[in-house]
Parts: sequence; C-alpha cells; structure tokens
Amino acid sequence: MPKDTVVKPATVTCTAPVNIAVVKYWGKRNEGLILPINSSLSVTLHQDQLKTTTTVASCRSFQEDRIWLNGKEEDINHPRLQSCLREIRRLARKRRNDGDSSVDVGCLSHKVHICSVNNFPTAAGLASSAAGFACLVYTLAKVYGVDGELSGIARQGSGSACRSMYGGFVQWIMGEREDGKDSVAQQVEPESHWPDLRVLVLVASAERKPVGSTAGMQTSVETSSLLKHRAESVVPDRMKQMIEAVHKKDFATFAELTMRDSNQFHATCLDTFPPIFYLNTVSRHVISLVHQYNRHYGAARVAYTFDAGPNAVIYTLQQHVAEFLQVVRLVFPPDNNNGKTFLTGLQVEPVEISEELKNAICLEPMSKGISYIISTQAGPGPRVLEDPSQHLLGPDGLPKTDA
Amino acid sequence: MPKDTVVKPATVTCTAPVNIAVVKYWGKRNEGLILPINSSLSVTLHQDQLKTTTTVASCRSFQEDRIWLNGKEEDINHPRLQSCLREIRRLARKRRNDGDSSVDVGCLSHKVHICSVNNFPTAAGLASSAAGFACLVYTLAKVYGVDGELSGIARQGSGSACRSMYGGFVQWIMGEREDGKDSVAQQVEPESHWPDLRVLVLVASAERKPVGSTAGMQTSVETSSLLKHRAESVVPDRMKQMIEAVHKKDFATFAELTMRDSNQFHATCLDTFPPIFYLNTVSRHVISLVHQYNRHYGAARVAYTFDAGPNAVIYTLQQHVAEFLQVVRLVFPPDNNNGKTFLTGLQVEPVEISEELKNAICLEPMSKGISYIISTQAGPGPRVLEDPSQHLLGPDGLPKTDA
Repeated sequence: MPKDTVVKPATVTCTAPVNIAVVKYWGKRNEGLILPINSSLSVTLHQDQLKTTTTVASCRSFQEDRIWLNGKEEDINHPRLQSCLREIRRLARKRRNDGDSSVDVGCLSHKVHICSVNNFPTAAGLASSAAGFACLVYTLAKVYGVDGELSGIARQGSGSACRSMYGGFVQWIMGEREDGKDSVAQQVEPESHWPDLRVLVLVASAERKPVGSTAGMQTSVETSSLLKHRAESVVPDRMKQMIEAVHKKDFATFAELTMRDSNQFHATCLDTFPPIFYLNTVSRHVISLVHQYNRHYGAARVAYTFDAGPNAVIYTLQQHVAEFLQVVRLVFPPDNNNGKTFLTGLQVEPVEISEELKNAICLEPMSKGISYIISTQAGPGPRVLEDPSQHLLGPDGLPKTDA
Repeated sequence: MPKDTVVKPATVTCTAPVNIAVVKYWGKRNEGLILPINSSLSVTLHQDQLKTTTTVASCRSFQEDRIWLNGKEEDINHPRLQSCLREIRRLARKRRNDGDSSVDVGCLSHKVHICSVNNFPTAAGLASSAAGFACLVYTLAKVYGVDGELSGIARQGSGSACRSMYGGFVQWIMGEREDGKDSVAQQVEPESHWPDLRVLVLVASAERKPVGSTAGMQTSVETSSLLKHRAESVVPDRMKQMIEAVHKKDFATFAELTMRDSNQFHATCLDTFPPIFYLNTVSRHVISLVHQYNRHYGAARVAYTFDAGPNAVIYTLQQHVAEFLQVVRLVFPPDNNNGKTFLTGLQVEPVEISEELKNAICLEPMSKGISYIISTQAGPGPRVLEDPSQHLLGPDGLPKTDA
C-alpha cells in the first residue's frame, strides 16, 4: 500500500482503578521482575472517583512506539514500559502460535501510540502508577486480542499495578518461583461483597516531594532488619487474618490489622538507613484523631492507612461516614477560599456531632492541613470504553487537543 | 534521750550524672524488678553541665521518710522510691549482719529526709529520672555506709538509672536470672578513654508532653512484634559491635550504630498499637541535617540519637564541633530575644563555614525550632560533695530556703 493512503489505526480505550493496600507491599526480592518480599492485599477503589483512562492505537503507518502521559509526551524507552510492551507482545505471539484466532495477527508487527490520563492530580500522591500500568496492560491486551492472566505483566510495570487488574478485594500472592510466574494478583472478594465499606482519601497539603517508593524500598531491603522480619514472620499470618476479616466483613479486625500494617510499614521506613519519613505532621494528627474517635466509642469504627506519602486513606462503614467527616472538619477546618470543594465524590449529608464526642477529641485544630477529601468505595476492575468519542487519540493517532 | 534534746541529723550530699543511650533500652520483661528485654549501652554525660544533686539526712527524731524534688515535697510512697529505700536498707542490714563495721548501725532504724534538685530544667526532656535515682541510691548508700554493686538497686528506681552509677561508657547487661541479680551496669571504658568525643544536646521547643516512657514501653512490649525481634535478634550483635567501636574509638562505626539504633527504637514505637511518636518536625529536621552534613563529607562525622522525646543528642568529635554548630545555627536560626544563651556548657569558638557546605545543606531554616544547646562531653559517675555548705537540707532536716 502506498504511503499516502489513509490508514486508520485500530484504537481501544480502557479505564483502570487505583488500589489502596491494607497489607502493604514494601521491598523486592528481584528488582528486574518486580518480585516482592511479601504478599499484600488491597481494596480496589471505585472508578467513578479515581481512574486512569488509556487509549492505545495500533497502525502500520506508525513509525515508532510513542506515549503521552497527562498531556505530555514521555520517553517510551522507560524500562518498565518496555517490559509491559514486550511481555504483552510475547504473550500475543505465543497465543497466535498456539492457534488462537482472536489474536490480531496484523497488529502484532505494528507500532503503538499510547495516551493516558488520570482524573485526579498526580500531586494527590495517590499511587497513580498502579492504575496507570494496569490500564496500559489491560488496553494493550485488548488491542492484541489476548486475555487471561495479565496481572503478572502489570506487575512488571509497577508492583502494585497487578492488584489494580481486579475489582474489590485483591491479594498479590508473592509467589516462590525465580521467574516470577506465580507472583500474581487474585481476587479475594468482588466489590459487591461489602457494600457498606466506605473510603475517604484525605489529601494532605504536601510539604515537599517525599523519597520515591522504588528507591525507598530498595534502601529498606538493603538496610532494615525489621523489614526482613516483617516480610518473613509478620505478613504471612497477617494475610490470613486479613483475608478472613474480609470474607467475614469483620470491620473491627479489618480496621485494626489495616492500622497496624500501615504503622509497621512506616516503622520499617524509619528503620531504613538513612531513615525515610512519609508521615508528616498532618498524617500524625489524622492518626491521633482516628484513635481518639475509636477510643470514644470503644470500638474500631474507622481505620487509617498511609502509603509512601502523607495522605491518609480512611476505611469506615457507611453508618459512620457522616459523623467522622464532621470530626475531620472540626480538626482540619477547611480553607474555604481555595475555590475547591472540600468534599468530592460520594455525597455525604452533614450531621451534628454530640458535645461528648467533641470533648473526646483533644486535638489542636490544624487549618489547611487537609486540602480536600475524596469520598469513595470499593469498585470494579479495568473495563473497556465502547464509545469511540472517548478515545484520547484521534484518527491521526495523535492526542486529541481536548484530551 | 528526752524528745526536746537537739538531735543533729547525719547528712550526706552527692551528685550523679545523666546518661544518653547509644543502644536503647525499651521494654521490660519484668515490670516490678525492672528487668529489660535487651542489654543497652550509654555515655555518661559530664556533671559540669548536667547533674542531679541529692542530700539525704538521717535522724532518729524524724517521724517519717520524706522527699522534696526540685523544691516541692512529693509522695514518698511512690513504689519505685520505696523499692530503692527498701533495697538499700536490706543491703545495709545484710552487711551489718555479716559483720561489716562500716555500716552505720544506729542509722538503720532512722527515718530519712531526701532533697534532690536538677541543674537543668525537667522540661528539657533529659532522662532526669536516671540521674535522680542514681543519685538517690548512691547517697543512701553513703548514709548507710554500704558500697559495692549498687546499680541493681538504682535499676529498680528507673531502669536506665543503673547506667548513671558509672562514668564514661557503660553497658547495662540485661541478665538472665528471674530475680534480676545479674541485671546490672558495668563500665565499658572510663570517661578518660575518648577525650575527643563531644556531646551536644539540642533542646527542641516541645510541642506537648509525649507519652511517658514507662507506659510507652509497656504498650510496645504488648503490641509490637518488631520490638521483640529487635530485642532478640538485633541488639545482641549490635551491643558487641558498639562495645568494639568504643574500645577502638572508631567514630564512624559508633556514629552509624548510634543513628541506626535510635531510628530502630523509634520504629518500634511506631509499630506499637496505638502508635507512639516521639520525633517531631524539629527532630526530623535534625536527622536530615545530620545526614546531609555527613553526606557532604562522605563520612559519619556526626551522629544523632533521640530518647522518648523530641530533643536530639548529637555525638561528634572535638574537631567537628564548631563547624557543625555553625550549620545548626544556619538551619535553626536562634531566637535572640528569649533572653537565654543559645549555646551553654563547653565553649565553642565560632567558625566560618564554606559555601560548598552551605550549598550541601538543602533545608528550609526553621527558626525557634531549637531553643538552646548544651555542649558537653563524657564524664565521671556519682560523687560525694564534701563541703557541708552544699547540703540541700538544713540542720533541721528541712530544705534550705535557697535550695
């Protein structure tokens, strides 16, 4: 076909969710394959509030693989991107050679254009790489017509991305094999399992960019003896307990395990040399608030967890959300002049809180400590957007200007 | 003798030092006897800068045991005070029964008045109970005429007090016996061993009173699996390495072990449930500063350690004190209006620091973060003050008004 003939690219657009671990992943036993030193478990957040959207276009007229992230072209040669591209193409080739007719044979020799955007600010410090790589792998798989176990490929983009390949409650089984083939994600329960569970993301006003998680966890593995102990002797039991708590919808156990695990992860960061601090003054204030709130009721009604940054993610039940939010407003008076809504996502009706509860919370108000809150819940895994108008790449294979 | 005859009390006054652990004590295996879950090691600070002074008067006219701490009468029935009084009296009785003529026989049936003052503000958050109980036990022993191994008694007042019974570099051997008889302090090297070693106490402007160490460590023992691992599997080796570093005056090793051990102690506090935070924003700023300073020189010239509070204690060598202090002044601009001298204790001549060093320190200045600095060094153990004018109790057995 002559070069000037118009060739229309094959285009697929998908979305994928963020996940928040309640048993944390920290530390790799194999850097290249991204094999973890312990299993982990997370809740997939609903894409109505937080998601990555990725369009992949494949066309024989494309000269090279290219990628645009949040409106900016990035280097396609990033090793982890290359891992995902290579592994998906390898899988497609294998399926084709095995005689699978669904694999798009022509497509396999074509270059791809990739365009990806998050519906939340990267600055929010929400593990955007998990949603990003899950979405990339899921979309590429659709383009090449492969399906089945894909979490092992997403894992090679970003460890926790493997957990974003499923909805609901997801474990990442660390596996034992040296080639990593058994280090994959598995759904523990679907998102419909625990309809009362609610999630609040408390976005802290960041002081500065913390140590990146890739560099951080490597230093931890090299220097922290507590991390080794945690991975070998604490997490295996904790995983069992957490899975049981999820099966039973036992919130008190789920909450305590979640808080303990977050604290222990940050403890291993502090045991790293030089030490790593992800929790800031706002984070510690949230921790105190949650413990005071729970102590007031003599029960774990609310749990916090923190990833490699200062934002708190709160797990609670539907019946406590409104009251707890009111307490948060009391301790972190919103800055009404920043032009943003303090609470976004799922609607929560304001409630009055009792004087007893007010008196039980002994904390100095910290104004502007939390810039805003995203209210959400557990949600489904990645999905295909069927409406072509939602493609982020135009018929020319370049990002739409309004993307 | 008729009651109105003037009876002059037997009076002894002693001083005892503060000590700062470089391998931390955190957690008891026996609360009553104060037996630790791991051995620890500290440097005794010089009494020219930091000390407790205690006067004990014994007189047959005293109706009851009484105690005044920093000018205020306190409850003598405090269990730990009672432990020390009981154990010293038991020891004296045993020695007398064994035929030791130095034991003051008459004295043994008398009540005592105790008066104790620190030459540093309690608010400074320096383990004042260590110096206090060491001084109490040492002074009582002089009053009753007993000597020999007394650290096991001081230990029953406050665990770390046993280490304040000796000067220089002191280990507290955890022991194995259930009765605690082998849980005692031992001098590793005298204060004259490492004359270049310098100590800076950076007194942080406290935000609020942190969790007390007694309650804190109990909760840690009950809830932190990392603490158990630290005590059993990390500290034994670390003790050996630290003792060797002290013997060899190997500052780089001493410094790294000191920082790692402080961080690990605070990591176990964070792994406690609910978590305990002793490090505040100022502490974390000091930690960053030290690492940036050391990184600039590619060597551990300075080490930090933090006890159950936000104050940093810095260990360094004489040749680096002036420069490091200047860097501290840069990052923590002194509040010149507070009427206090920023630097107290051993004199340090101001020096200029290089532009390269200034540029290597990438930290926002935090004014008023450190309220003042005490410059000191390793020093001797408790001693008797021979001059009667230094008694804190008058001939009437009551605190002197100017005490």
